[in-house]
Amino acid sequence: MEDSRQTRFAAIEKTLGYSFDGEIKIGGNYTSTVQHGDVIYVSGQVPRVGSTVVVTGRAGADVSLTQAQLGAKVCAMRALALLRQNLGSLDRIQQVMRVTVYTQSATDFTQQSEVADAASEVLHTVLGAAGIHTRTSVGVAQLPKNATVEVDLIAAVTPA
Amino acid sequence: MEDSRQTRFAAIEKTLGYSFDGEIKIGGNYTSTVQHGDVIYVSGQVPRVGSTVVVTGRAGADVSLTQAQLGAKVCAMRALALLRQNLGSLDRIQQVMRVTVYTQSATDFTQQSEVADAASEVLHTVLGAAGIHTRTSVGVAQLPKNATVEVDLIAAVTPA
Amino acid sequence: MEDSRQTRFAAIEKTLGYSFDGEIKIGGNYTSTVQHGDVIYVSGQVPRVGSTVVVTGRAGADVSLTQAQLGAKVCAMRALALLRQNLGSLDRIQQVMRVTVYTQSATDFTQQSEVADAASEVLHTVLGAAGIHTRTSVGVAQLPKNATVEVDLIAAVTPA
Repeated sequence: MEDSRQTRFAAIEKTLGYSFDGEIKIGGNYTSTVQHGDVIYVSGQVPRVGSTVVVTGRAGADVSLTQAQLGAKVCAMRALALLRQNLGSLDRIQQVMRVTVYTQSATDFTQQSEVADAASEVLHTVLGAAGIHTRTSVGVAQLPKNATVEVDLIAAVTPA
Repeated sequence: MEDSRQTRFAAIEKTLGYSFDGEIKIGGNYTSTVQHGDVIYVSGQVPRVGSTVVVTGRAGADVSLTQAQLGAKVCAMRALALLRQNLGSLDRIQQVMRVTVYTQSATDFTQQSEVADAASEVLHTVLGAAGIHTRTSVGVAQLPKNATVEVDLIAAVTPA
Repeated sequence: MEDSRQTRFAAIEKTLGYSFDGEIKIGGNYTSTVQHGDVIYVSGQVPRVGSTVVVTGRAGADVSLTQAQLGAKVCAMRALALLRQNLGSLDRIQQVMRVTVYTQSATDFTQQSEVADAASEVLHTVLGAAGIHTRTSVGVAQLPKNATVEVDLIAAVTPA
């Protein structure tokens, strides 16, 4: 199989055991991506697959580092799936510029960077150098739907 | 009355019972908006009206969802008021690109998206399609002055 | 001594008693800065000097406001050191546009703005008007390595 961003994305899908092929819908007054010029913003993604948030609870209490990292990977894959859906191809991602990783954290859990590493690894594996980004990792009190992790990003886009 | 962004802004002011007409001042070493090229950043807004933060306390404990949503609306109105003050008119907002909504949350409060919906609704009601944005909603441990909600945003601007 | 951004940076270094001269290394799948066009993103900085995080613990509990402010200053100095390292000179910072300051906060600690003021002061002192930015200050549950403060920023850059 040709080595491409799409094949590497599919390989991670297979490893995780989740599909990100379906259209990701967002209702109402906000949306999943907004592009302005050659910059695209992606909304904060929780580790949802279909209608289920697959990793919930508090890192360092209910949830192990490994589970939280799985959550971060799913968030990153969702962000990539949204970029692919909106840009037509992963190949149009020129550079991921900023990633923020929020981890629902027990007050004594200090491995937010290690959780975020899992999201960074997905981006780098799929996109190569274009996936190397600046990053902010913080531990928060709660996240929507009790998600363990939420990831948003900003990327530069190659013209179609 | 003509249907315009300004009239819709005024209608929400009337519903909330708060005026956002006064100049919003910020002291010192930072400022309320910075524009670079056609992109404008707005500082994090707490639900302050005049010198009072009108919604304080922790969502899911001291503060109901409805009160937190009121706070989110006031934050969004303040952000719009700052854009109007700096751009001269709400009509110069080309597109809201990113909104981040921080909710001071009890550890078991997971309706951060529902709080954020209230901010998104204000932006969409006033700005129409230009108000549809990407969004990140998180639950935090505390906010300045015990505010229940804080909202910041990034928008694209139409030349004057 | 000539009054320049570099001399003002060095004066703060001397006051703090820390040196930010060494190269700041970041491993792996993310990086400390990404520039696209004339915009540069800086990764979230904790108050690390060399291999030590010099201010750790929870503001309002283990850590006083003054100590948290020291942490915020170190974060801001690190961000400036990274910009200098990547741009070749502090003089190429055209405008700091956005600063986000995360403070690890006790649930009743509400002086996040006062902590952030210390970071804003460093940026303004070193950069003058170019250091006046929009800002978001929030109180979070935890930060990487138990850091008390984390600061990230986005700036506009003057061509070399």
